[in-house]
Amino acid sequence: MAHTTLPGFRDFYPEQFAERAYVTRAWREVARRYAFMEYDGPPLESLELYTAKSGDEIVGQLYNFVDKGGREVALRPEMTPTFARMVSARANSLRKPTRWFSIPQLFRYERQQKGRLREHYQLNVDIVGEAGVAADAELVACAIDICRELRLTSNEVVVRVSDRRVMHAYLAALGIPSGAFEVVLAVTDKLARQPRAVSAEKLAAAGLNESQVNAVLDITSATLDTVATAIVATSEPGGEHVEELRRFFEYVGTLVPDGAAWLQFDLSIVRGLAYYTGIVFELFDRSGEFRAICGGGRYDNLLGAIGGAALPALGFGMGDVVLTELLRARKLLPVTEPSVDYWLTADEDVPLTKIMAEAAQLRAQGFSVEYALRHQTPSKQRKSANAAGAHSIIHLTNAATAGSHAR
Amino acid sequence: MAHTTLPGFRDFYPEQFAERAYVTRAWREVARRYAFMEYDGPPLESLELYTAKSGDEIVGQLYNFVDKGGREVALRPEMTPTFARMVSARANSLRKPTRWFSIPQLFRYERQQKGRLREHYQLNVDIVGEAGVAADAELVACAIDICRELRLTSNEVVVRVSDRRVMHAYLAALGIPSGAFEVVLAVTDKLARQPRAVSAEKLAAAGLNESQVNAVLDITSATLDTVATAIVATSEPGGEHVEELRRFFEYVGTLVPDGAAWLQFDLSIVRGLAYYTGIVFELFDRSGEFRAICGGGRYDNLLGAIGGAALPALGFGMGDVVLTELLRARKLLPVTEPSVDYWLTADEDVPLTKIMAEAAQLRAQGFSVEYALRHQTPSKQRKSANAAGAHSIIHLTNAATAGSHAR
Repeated sequence: MAHTTLPGFRDFYPEQFAERAYVTRAWREVARRYAFMEYDGPPLESLELYTAKSGDEIVGQLYNFVDKGGREVALRPEMTPTFARMVSARANSLRKPTRWFSIPQLFRYERQQKGRLREHYQLNVDIVGEAGVAADAELVACAIDICRELRLTSNEVVVRVSDRRVMHAYLAALGIPSGAFEVVLAVTDKLARQPRAVSAEKLAAAGLNESQVNAVLDITSATLDTVATAIVATSEPGGEHVEELRRFFEYVGTLVPDGAAWLQFDLSIVRGLAYYTGIVFELFDRSGEFRAICGGGRYDNLLGAIGGAALPALGFGMGDVVLTELLRARKLLPVTEPSVDYWLTADEDVPLTKIMAEAAQLRAQGFSVEYALRHQTPSKQRKSANAAGAHSIIHLTNAATAGSHAR
Repeated sequence: MAHTTLPGFRDFYPEQFAERAYVTRAWREVARRYAFMEYDGPPLESLELYTAKSGDEIVGQLYNFVDKGGREVALRPEMTPTFARMVSARANSLRKPTRWFSIPQLFRYERQQKGRLREHYQLNVDIVGEAGVAADAELVACAIDICRELRLTSNEVVVRVSDRRVMHAYLAALGIPSGAFEVVLAVTDKLARQPRAVSAEKLAAAGLNESQVNAVLDITSATLDTVATAIVATSEPGGEHVEELRRFFEYVGTLVPDGAAWLQFDLSIVRGLAYYTGIVFELFDRSGEFRAICGGGRYDNLLGAIGGAALPALGFGMGDVVLTELLRARKLLPVTEPSVDYWLTADEDVPLTKIMAEAAQLRAQGFSVEYALRHQTPSKQRKSANAAGAHSIIHLTNAATAGSHAR
């Protein structure tokens, strides 16, 4: 008889809802300051919207089914396809750059792992119609300012930044043939999770010589200066992307008071191979305890591919689960007890209508008000008031004037 | 190549999102004043959670499917089963009366009719653990105050109120045998939509004599006094429920300044037969143009049946679609243009970092700020500022001091 949630799904009792609301309030507030406007789309979409972006392999991870009208549909696993669809439908009339954000709930049927959820909420922030690097800086500054709003500092969180084009130029400067780039990126993406020897073997198998292998294995420690020098020394093209990246760092440092302290150049940040075209970034807790807090970058080819409107675009996603875990671990998640502004208690001979009239007056002034819905002893009423976390108790007597206000 | 939404699903572009946010803000604000706490549950639940409440017939109207783990699941068509599940799981530890609200998106696979949606947002407000009529009054007062918050008045909206137990007592007083009650309630439910002759025929077929048939056909105009007199005259039980209903009317009139003006006793309000046990109510626009805005009532047996915790309970649901249509028709839906607090323009020789620094300062003070992400002529920048609905434009020059503030 006892029903439960499906595995991987969460109930939000008022205490949990308050935590979720704390995070989403920060998301909304900072996104608003950065002049992003909120939108939303349906949680259920045509399956082909997702296969158009990610290929048929994605289907294995989806909540997909055939609806009663014979349509292949899926619960949204990510927001970008919906975003691309909506922007493309109004590509001509939308003001550019388009600055939108959304807070969808997303669904993935992942094989169940300990504590791994099948749904989460994710802030999506995107800019469409601006190819210049100031847009990338705005986006990353917004992500950092959300962390700051939640009282995280650059001691806890780092923004690792790479650039797909700079990476390609650096690999070319190392003398690695472009035919091996895909393998190199795949190995780079796994550097932290894969034994060094395994990575080395894969790189050698792709035709890299020993010094190239070592350069890739140590790519995390390559500074922007090292990379710039290597590119200039070999007269490989791509120097302009290094300069753009320098401007990006300068811009983020200007947009956020201590922006530079959050940033770290790190060519090992790869993200979706088929997807990103320029600057990519990920936010991590510096202790390395948690998965990425946030990830994003520039995807200039995607809108054209999914929606038919070829516009430069960039965005990030920030989920609620890892972020909330981190806040909890750092004791930055406020414990929100239930509370109410006024709880009205009354002597037992006070008619309920008198209490209701007082409640009505206080509510009309915007206060939250509760009172006993049936006659109870004053001491029982006070107990309820305390349990409700009442900020103030107003006690009503049958005297002609209003009762005493105990605040 | 052009993807679209599934039929019956909505995109919320920023303009539409602003309308939805206007309504949900009013819902949250008034529910908070009435000391209800927000909760949420999963949009996907076990199918049996819904069949346990509504029987197998409900399946035809659901978005249900078998997930990749072989589970029969469904997108939630209503919130009450989730609510019952959550409350029952913590029935002993929850403070009573439990006052909760939620704003879920709900899904029904209805045969597609003109403009009929397959999803909507619905405010759910519920009280658990209080059998007295003050709880019913709090609930209806909350629904009325939401309308008032949205600037609707008792000229536009009426709350029709019935009571399942009073209805039964009245039918008994009319001499109608209890075996015919189910048919009478079904006919009553359809009185407004079914030709009078058809209703009369069905009632006669159920064994009602002519005067009983006429009394049922005219039940909408039966006043509480008529009903009370009839019940007293025949010494039928149920008089105490008439008195409760009188107190309910008095309480709502006390909780809302002009509460009495919104209320109308109307025994033709039936609602779910198997579900409601006491006072039931529906909010309608008085012009009769729209479907019900809101409906609810007392369902004292449901928690026991679904969740195993036998607690008195009552609640209402208020959807976003009809309410928004009504607000639009009455010109009460604010046209919310996109807007931003500050748009920063600059002479062409001003470096982008100077503009960014000014943006950072204003954002740190909580203002929303936008600026051109690349160098543009001042006139192009002003155009963008106007298109963004900027409340103020700040123009920066390369002079040492801050630029002129045009507000």
